[in-house]
Amino acid sequence: MSTDRAEPAPLVLYAGPPEEWDAYAGLIPAACAEAGVPITLVRDAPPEAVDYIVYAPKSDLSDFAPYTNAKAVLSLWAGVEKIVGNESLTQPLTRMSDDGLRLGMIDWVSGHVLRHHLGMDAHILGQDGVWRNDTIPPLARDRRVGVLGLGALGAACAQALARHGFAVSGWSRRAKAVEGVRSAHGDAGLAMVLAQSEILVLLLPLTPDTRHIINAATLAELPKGAIIINPGRGPLIDDDALLAALDAGHIGHATLDVFATEPLPAEHPYWAHPRVTVTPHIASATRPETAAEVIAANILRGERGEPLLYPVDRAAGY
Amino acid sequence: MSTDRAEPAPLVLYAGPPEEWDAYAGLIPAACAEAGVPITLVRDAPPEAVDYIVYAPKSDLSDFAPYTNAKAVLSLWAGVEKIVGNESLTQPLTRMSDDGLRLGMIDWVSGHVLRHHLGMDAHILGQDGVWRNDTIPPLARDRRVGVLGLGALGAACAQALARHGFAVSGWSRRAKAVEGVRSAHGDAGLAMVLAQSEILVLLLPLTPDTRHIINAATLAELPKGAIIINPGRGPLIDDDALLAALDAGHIGHATLDVFATEPLPAEHPYWAHPRVTVTPHIASATRPETAAEVIAANILRGERGEPLLYPVDRAAGY
Repeated sequence: MSTDRAEPAPLVLYAGPPEEWDAYAGLIPAACAEAGVPITLVRDAPPEAVDYIVYAPKSDLSDFAPYTNAKAVLSLWAGVEKIVGNESLTQPLTRMSDDGLRLGMIDWVSGHVLRHHLGMDAHILGQDGVWRNDTIPPLARDRRVGVLGLGALGAACAQALARHGFAVSGWSRRAKAVEGVRSAHGDAGLAMVLAQSEILVLLLPLTPDTRHIINAATLAELPKGAIIINPGRGPLIDDDALLAALDAGHIGHATLDVFATEPLPAEHPYWAHPRVTVTPHIASATRPETAAEVIAANILRGERGEPLLYPVDRAAGY
Repeated sequence: MSTDRAEPAPLVLYAGPPEEWDAYAGLIPAACAEAGVPITLVRDAPPEAVDYIVYAPKSDLSDFAPYTNAKAVLSLWAGVEKIVGNESLTQPLTRMSDDGLRLGMIDWVSGHVLRHHLGMDAHILGQDGVWRNDTIPPLARDRRVGVLGLGALGAACAQALARHGFAVSGWSRRAKAVEGVRSAHGDAGLAMVLAQSEILVLLLPLTPDTRHIINAATLAELPKGAIIINPGRGPLIDDDALLAALDAGHIGHATLDVFATEPLPAEHPYWAHPRVTVTPHIASATRPETAAEVIAANILRGERGEPLLYPVDRAAGY
């Protein structure tokens, strides 16, 4: 890089979760310096002086209009459904897609698919001294797993499951090819994937089209005893319809990591339901170390006038 | 194949588990015919007329001496420690190594390693309405898994875990290379692998050398909080030493599929121990479909005078 530049370092506003400031205050400037684009990271600045905004909904910032010179809003979160509806946000917007988020999701999804495939809960919950060795699960190649959503996370998980040996079908709104995965799209494709999913994993973004995509009608299309695993977004599921299908025995179990209201209220019927496992939105998390590198890469691209990584398509909603 | 052979079809004695006769009575002759070596499979025959014995310890056969013309004893089981000590068995002996056994073991081991990696039990057992999202597990690449035993099953599991992304070390008596796995052998190698195994998987054969290989001394070499997963053979572990290490909190959990006495007696302390999960020798099973193909392949080799697959080394004990 040239050393005689007159431009001051870009001013980056941190509008992420307050509890993560301590981590990002060091990591983002270090990652930017490493990438060759030294910056100044602050938590407060005159809006018109700000060049980039590092953002997550868990912050005080909601009006983006005064940031007239901001070149981009860089989300720390993969899901942007709480951001895209903000009409004051007219700057280019990117979502997070970090290596840690993807790898952590592969761990969680692979683990819970294998848990249900093997019927582990019977042993974890049933240490009663009785030796029951009469059922051996099928091999993974004879277990049909469906993945709804073939974006960065869905495709990575579908591919990892296929690589393990499962018979994987995937569905996305638009046609997508994923290695080792039988993929489908559109309404007919959805019905086909549902009909053959003994274990169904939800990794769709939340949009008006995908809200309650799992409802009484689509639940009925799953094979009897099917397992639902949702590390995507809570409102993908019509909760009343799922509870009814669980009570009727049509759905065998639901392992849910995300909910319409989080934290899931203590009185919500999911907590006490014997066929539901609640995990507290831990399926995967943006790891500050890897997220800082994505932020740095996008600031470098912004400064060079290059296309940003992971731009949000406002029309599609993700 | 020539059609003008004078030889009668080889006579094969089934001395496997009586409850599996119904499956094998059809599968073994069919697999042999498919392989081009038609046979006659019987449950009883004059010993001197028998050409091959398909065997498992769960049968009445214990004296092999009268089978003077038998060309081989073909074990239906992968573990042969109950067979190698039989001095009447002087015929060539093979063990089972079928695709189904290997794939089923990969499923079980991957599933339980991920279960412990993710700390799933806290959620499966703790649906108490409290949202605890403060601990996120490390990524698989930062989780150190050790596999003792790099035979057909151990190597396959170590490789699958490495392919998933875990940091895998493997140990075997003799030096072996497994793709993606840091492998070690000998006493110094064992200490090195133990010292870095947050999760330790036992897939060694049972021999005088490996009996109680997990004892007070080796348990002490594991990191504090280590998890032990045993789908290998029960007596690899000194049970009293493991219970003491669990009680002391040095070992975090043990998931055990095999035991010195099976079925594990209802009064055994493993059943009631809060840090032990007992599974009833289901980690993997020989699948009759794939096992029949291995039996057929070996009968074909025997008839052709070719070396048999998976011969047992009596000196090594496996």
